[in-house]
Amino acid sequence: MEDLITCVEEQPQPPSSLPNSWTNQHSDSAQRTDEEPKAVGGFVLVHAGAGYHSESKAKEYKHVCKRACQRAVERLRAGALAMEAVAAALVELEDSPFTNAGMGSNLNLSGEIECDASIMDGKSLHYGSVGAIRGIKNPVLVAHRLLSEAQKGKLSAGRIPPCFLVGRGAHDWAVAHGIPPCPAEKMATKFSLSAYKRNKRKMEIAEKMDTPENPMKRRRQSSETENGSECLDTVGAIVVDQEGNVASAVSSGGLAMKHPGRVGQAAHYGCGCWAQNSCNSNPYSTAVSTSGCGEHLIRTMLARECSVALQAEDAHQALLDAMQNQFISSPFLASEDRVLGGVIVLRCCRCEEDPPSQDLQASLVEFLWSHSTESMCVGYMSAQDSRAK
Amino acid sequence: MEDLITCVEEQPQPPSSLPNSWTNQHSDSAQRTDEEPKAVGGFVLVHAGAGYHSESKAKEYKHVCKRACQRAVERLRAGALAMEAVAAALVELEDSPFTNAGMGSNLNLSGEIECDASIMDGKSLHYGSVGAIRGIKNPVLVAHRLLSEAQKGKLSAGRIPPCFLVGRGAHDWAVAHGIPPCPAEKMATKFSLSAYKRNKRKMEIAEKMDTPENPMKRRRQSSETENGSECLDTVGAIVVDQEGNVASAVSSGGLAMKHPGRVGQAAHYGCGCWAQNSCNSNPYSTAVSTSGCGEHLIRTMLARECSVALQAEDAHQALLDAMQNQFISSPFLASEDRVLGGVIVLRCCRCEEDPPSQDLQASLVEFLWSHSTESMCVGYMSAQDSRAK
Repeated sequence: MEDLITCVEEQPQPPSSLPNSWTNQHSDSAQRTDEEPKAVGGFVLVHAGAGYHSESKAKEYKHVCKRACQRAVERLRAGALAMEAVAAALVELEDSPFTNAGMGSNLNLSGEIECDASIMDGKSLHYGSVGAIRGIKNPVLVAHRLLSEAQKGKLSAGRIPPCFLVGRGAHDWAVAHGIPPCPAEKMATKFSLSAYKRNKRKMEIAEKMDTPENPMKRRRQSSETENGSECLDTVGAIVVDQEGNVASAVSSGGLAMKHPGRVGQAAHYGCGCWAQNSCNSNPYSTAVSTSGCGEHLIRTMLARECSVALQAEDAHQALLDAMQNQFISSPFLASEDRVLGGVIVLRCCRCEEDPPSQDLQASLVEFLWSHSTESMCVGYMSAQDSRAK
Repeated sequence: MEDLITCVEEQPQPPSSLPNSWTNQHSDSAQRTDEEPKAVGGFVLVHAGAGYHSESKAKEYKHVCKRACQRAVERLRAGALAMEAVAAALVELEDSPFTNAGMGSNLNLSGEIECDASIMDGKSLHYGSVGAIRGIKNPVLVAHRLLSEAQKGKLSAGRIPPCFLVGRGAHDWAVAHGIPPCPAEKMATKFSLSAYKRNKRKMEIAEKMDTPENPMKRRRQSSETENGSECLDTVGAIVVDQEGNVASAVSSGGLAMKHPGRVGQAAHYGCGCWAQNSCNSNPYSTAVSTSGCGEHLIRTMLARECSVALQAEDAHQALLDAMQNQFISSPFLASEDRVLGGVIVLRCCRCEEDPPSQDLQASLVEFLWSHSTESMCVGYMSAQDSRAK
């Protein structure tokens, strides 16, 4: 059985006191009037993947997570909706040459970079996604644009706009919609190229060992190699804006040495990210972003399962149970020897308490993360904070 | 609001009498001994899409549905598992030049055929899928092969085998695994080519009408065109074998005039098909295959939702409720003017009643279909039947 590491803080914050320093529940003003400026609300939580992070890489990851939080909060402070802010965070994460997303992504078997990304808007429940896209520096911007275009309604002659594009078609659609192409040689970095060479050697050695007489040797050896895997550093972010709308996004270069055309959870609806504003049947707005082995996250639909679970009263226990029952011990992964993944979640509810001030509606935000991997790099920041953590 | 048409028959069949003619609940022997040959069990339900079917097309569809049932039942009688039988049915459906799957699929904006297909095995809960694949006559065979390869465990150097491949990579993987490529000119038919020309004209007229002054004219006109749409004839099948295992599959050429690279529900986990054997928490084994507007079926995850709903006692009411609440009135499709789709479902449970014969365990199979479209073409057959219906 996997060890499960879940992080949560439990300090409730009274709705009227806006803390400068972060706590896991914070309040913001949601109904503001033009006459009286109030503290701007909103919150962002980002991740740079669940997996094994070396000391040197962990430091870089911390920096990029902080920068991503900063970018999202800048957008929130400028009045942007959650979806704009989450996209801004993702661009920063993708632009880092250290993360396995956008520039510097893992190379596939053919030595090429193919990326997956998706974004979901909790308000409209629209969704945009790209899979196995090449030559685009920021795949999340294509997913974002797909979402925006779909929100505009039907295309000519009653055609339904796509929510999910892959491969060459996705690339061409992006360029036709003003997203600049990026030459393949600029997408790869010193890091990703040297990892490719290293992985290729590993594969060659493993395949030499794989004789028809001992196919099991291959399988065994695999699990050992996997523990030191660098392939899980998908990035993602979840945001709640000052109006209480949630949004989520995820972006990944996918598994190292994957087969060309392989699409992982980052492009898969319900698996890579989920965002859903509260409604009659759901008291909480929830946002989720995942990281880990794409195939495991697809087959368990982990993002959506976590969102459903988070409607229970105790968010901490709900997330623990979801990670254990819907992921690690999932019947869908019964044949897997190691189930590796992580998730960041936030939920918020509008608390209409006896108001300290008439026009202040408090929004309580709880956020947590949990992973079965050795480590998971996260950063977070509220719109009231001066810096990310 | 859409009209919802649901079909179900309610005649219970005593477990020990194996009817030659079909009823919606039939029994089969599940625990057979080698000494005593018993009636071979199993059941298949197929669809050739929910949409509008012209008189002439409906006749062809009926024929191909019957042939597909026959193929599946032949496999079941030969002792094949549900997954093999469901793949055999799909190959027949794809091979018809009339269906929008495999050969004769809708052409995309560029005049090319790109197909989606997926398959799910209720026993292992494994899943295989291909999206936007070109030049392969039977996309379902690639999905099937992906599933089989994934069941074998990890690849060399600990790499997790893919469950979802798209585009050029999917094509190359298929060919490398012995599935023959098919020249593009053989994939298109007289039908699909003339539909492409007709659709292209429609689009040109629609785009001429779409001036900046009246963008709404475009949207309006679209919905009207859509009613006569030929683009919903995705095919699918669901099977239960004599051991009570379920499997499901779906295959589609996608929406006519779709953007290249667009992937619809037929390649989307939880959206195009679902199959899940009974387990501790689920008394029923369920299998589902969907048809309709891909984007609507993706955003509502209709296949999986129906499977979850079918764990309720009254299958008929459960399906009606799922179609109404999770699809037609789904908050995920609140902005859509028409929600078009259909679904075939089956569920079965092992009934350990006071047994009429010691070694006979009865398996009750219920099957239903429901659609919000004008028509839906289905066929079904049990392993005891001499012909399909």
